[in-house]
Amino acid sequence: MSIGNANKECLRRIQESSAVVTDIRLARDVIPGMTERTVLHAGPPITWDRMCGPMRGAISGACVFEGWAKTPEEGLELAASGELTFDSCHNRCSVGPMSGIITPSMAVWVIRNEKFGLETYSNLYEGIGKVLRHGANDEGVIEKLRWMHSDLAPVMTEALRRSGGIDIKTLMAEALQMGDELHNRNRGASSRFILALAPHMAANGKGDLERIITFMDSSGHFSLNCQMAACKAMLDAGNGVENSTVVTTMARNGTEFGIRVSGLGDAWFTAPAPIIDGVYFPGYGPDDANPDLGDSAITETAGLGSLAMAAAPAVVKLVGGTPQFARDTTLKMYEITAGEHDTFRLPPLDFRGVPLGIDIRKVVETGICPVINTGIAHRKPGIGQIGAGLTAAPMECFVKALEAFAAKKGVTADT
Amino acid sequence: MSIGNANKECLRRIQESSAVVTDIRLARDVIPGMTERTVLHAGPPITWDRMCGPMRGAISGACVFEGWAKTPEEGLELAASGELTFDSCHNRCSVGPMSGIITPSMAVWVIRNEKFGLETYSNLYEGIGKVLRHGANDEGVIEKLRWMHSDLAPVMTEALRRSGGIDIKTLMAEALQMGDELHNRNRGASSRFILALAPHMAANGKGDLERIITFMDSSGHFSLNCQMAACKAMLDAGNGVENSTVVTTMARNGTEFGIRVSGLGDAWFTAPAPIIDGVYFPGYGPDDANPDLGDSAITETAGLGSLAMAAAPAVVKLVGGTPQFARDTTLKMYEITAGEHDTFRLPPLDFRGVPLGIDIRKVVETGICPVINTGIAHRKPGIGQIGAGLTAAPMECFVKALEAFAAKKGVTADT
Repeated sequence: MSIGNANKECLRRIQESSAVVTDIRLARDVIPGMTERTVLHAGPPITWDRMCGPMRGAISGACVFEGWAKTPEEGLELAASGELTFDSCHNRCSVGPMSGIITPSMAVWVIRNEKFGLETYSNLYEGIGKVLRHGANDEGVIEKLRWMHSDLAPVMTEALRRSGGIDIKTLMAEALQMGDELHNRNRGASSRFILALAPHMAANGKGDLERIITFMDSSGHFSLNCQMAACKAMLDAGNGVENSTVVTTMARNGTEFGIRVSGLGDAWFTAPAPIIDGVYFPGYGPDDANPDLGDSAITETAGLGSLAMAAAPAVVKLVGGTPQFARDTTLKMYEITAGEHDTFRLPPLDFRGVPLGIDIRKVVETGICPVINTGIAHRKPGIGQIGAGLTAAPMECFVKALEAFAAKKGVTADT
Repeated sequence: MSIGNANKECLRRIQESSAVVTDIRLARDVIPGMTERTVLHAGPPITWDRMCGPMRGAISGACVFEGWAKTPEEGLELAASGELTFDSCHNRCSVGPMSGIITPSMAVWVIRNEKFGLETYSNLYEGIGKVLRHGANDEGVIEKLRWMHSDLAPVMTEALRRSGGIDIKTLMAEALQMGDELHNRNRGASSRFILALAPHMAANGKGDLERIITFMDSSGHFSLNCQMAACKAMLDAGNGVENSTVVTTMARNGTEFGIRVSGLGDAWFTAPAPIIDGVYFPGYGPDDANPDLGDSAITETAGLGSLAMAAAPAVVKLVGGTPQFARDTTLKMYEITAGEHDTFRLPPLDFRGVPLGIDIRKVVETGICPVINTGIAHRKPGIGQIGAGLTAAPMECFVKALEAFAAKKGVTADT
C-alpha cells in the first residue's frame, strides 16, 4: 500500500471509531499488566532518576494514597528504592493529564471503541488548584482523592451503568459547537457530561449529590480525562497500519516529549520536553515552570486541542494569544495533517472538519510543529499548577520518526 | 441633554443593570394589574378580532388550563365573548416567547434588577414540539402544562430560593463564550442554568428529579424565558430618558410588529408583522407560516440574538445561512446601534462588546433594519412550531417613531 493510501486507511479507522464511556473500575481490575506495585505515568517511559519534579511529587502522593507510605517523603524514598514498577500509561491502554499517575487502587474511566474492540482508561479529574496531577501531595490533596474514591466514584459508576453509557464522541462533537477545543477549554463538554449523568444520579438517589454535582461542575474541565481516553481509543484503532506516517500518540513526561507513528509500531521517538509560553497565575513565572508534561496532547493528536482552537476563541483568555491567533493556529495545522475529520467540525470555519492525522513527513517538510495547549506545573514536587499556555511538539521527534520510517522502508525521506 | 448624551445615559443604565432570577411565583400574585380574567399576550396590544391563529390557539388552550373552558373550542368562544381582559405582556413588566400567553394561575420567573429596583416576569419554557406558545392546545399540551405547574415549578422554586438566586446576567455573558446568541441557540446558557439549580434540587431531595432534570435539559432552550425577562429588566432601566432615540422594546403579536423608544414613553410604533425566511420542519413550508410572533425579540433589543450572532456560528444550522453570514449580521448591526456592551462580549470578534442600543435615527438613515432570529409557528390555531429562521423589524416602525420624536421636539429628523 502506498503511504498515501496507508494514511487514508489509518484516518478511516480513526474516524469510524466509536467512543463510549461505559464504566468506572479500579485500575488493578482492568488495566493490562497492572501489578500491585505498578505506577503508570504520563508520556514516554522514563526511569525515576530522570523524572521531573511534579511527576515525583505526584508519585510520592500516590504512594500515600495507596497506603504504601505514610508521608510524601516516605513515598519519595520508596519510589527511589526500585521497589515500584514504572511504565507509561500509553503502553497500558491508558492516559492521564499532567503527571498522569495511575496506581492499582485508583478508579479509572473505561472508554470502549466497540467498532474496533478496543478499551482505554483514564483516571478521574481532580478539579483545579492543588491536585496530584500537577505534583501537589499534601494532606488536602490526598483527602480529596480519598473522597473521590469513597463517595464520588461509586455514585458516578452506578449512574453511568444505569445510563447505558455516555457516547463521548458525540458529546465532543457537540462541544465543538459550544466553544470548546476539548483540551484547555471544556466548559461545554463538561456541562453536557454532568447533565448526562445527573438524571441517573438523581434516580439512584444515593450519596451527597449536592456536593458531588458541585464538585463535578466546579472547574469546567471534569470530562477532560474521558475525552483524552476517547481520543486514545479512536487513535489506537489507527495504529499498526503498515506504511502509514500518521502520528497516533503525542505525550510528555515533563522530561521528554515522545511520539509514536501508525506504521512504526510501539517505538517512541523522543526529544527534550519544551518549555511553555504561558499565562501564569499571580506570583509565578517562567522560572518556576516545569517543561511540557502530560498525556493530554492526545487531544491534539486526535485533531482537537490547539488543532481545533478555531472553535474556541475564548480559550485565549486561559492560554494567551488572540481569537485571530486561535483561528490561524487551526488553519496552519491543516498544512501538516493527512485529512480532515468527518465528525468533529468547526462552526467558525464553516463546519470544516478539524485537521486530523499529523503526518511526520509534512511536519518535517514544512517545518511546522504541532501546537499544544496545556497547563503548566511548578517544576518542584508538591506545589501544583501555576499557569497554562501554548507550546509545540519538538521537531526532533518527527525527524527521528521519519528517519526510522525511511530506514525501515529502505527509502529516502521524501518519497 | 443632547440626543447623543441622552442615548449614552440610556445605555449606561442598561449596562449597569443587574439581573438575578430570584423566585417563581404565580402570575396573579406578582404581575401588576393581573385580574382573575386577565390574559397577557406577546407583542403590542391587540384585540381578539385581529389576533393571529397561533395566539388564538394558545389563548383557548390557556382557558382550558385555567379551568375557564372544558375544551379549546369553548375557550375560543369565551375569548371572543369579551369576558376576558387582554393586554400586552410588555405593558405589565412581562415577556413571553411566541404567543406569550400568561394567565393568572401560571407560574412565572421573577427577575430582579436590584440596581434600578425593577422586577420582570416570564412564563416557563415548555420544551419543543407541540407547545402552547406556538398555538398547540390539545390534551397533551395542557397535561404537560399541568405537570410543569404541579411538579416542576415547586421543585425549581425551592431550589432557586435555596440557591439565593441565579445571576442570569453573568450566566448570559458566559454563554456568549459557549456559542450561544441567547435567542435561538441557548445550549450553553441552558446547561449552565440547569447546573446552577441541580445541586440545590438534589439537596432538597424532593420530586422526580430524573424526570425534572431530563425535561429541563431536553431542548437546549430551557433558560430562554429567564434570559428574555432579564433583557427586559435591563432595558426597562433605560426607559424614559428624555431625548433618547434608543429602542427599548421590540415585540410581535403575529399581526403587528411594535417598538418602543426610551424618550417616547409607553407609545408603541407598529407595522404589519413580517414573514420569516426560515428553515422548515419536514412537511411544512412558507404557506403554512404565521408572520413574526413573540416577545423574544427583546433579546435583539438588548444586543443579543441576531445582534450577537457572531458568537454562535452553529445557530445557522437552525435558522439558516452560513457562519460568515452570522458574523456579517453582527458587524452590520453596529451601524445602527448607539454603543457596545461592556459585559456581553463576542470572542470571535476579539471580545468586542455586542452592538447595543438600536437607534431609530440610524435605522432610518442607513436603511438597515434590525435582524431577528426566531421560531416559526403554524398560522392556524392548535398546530404548533413548524420551523425557525430570520426576519427583520419593519422599517415602518422606526420611521413612525422618528416622526413622533421629531414632532415632540419640534425639530427635523436628522438633528
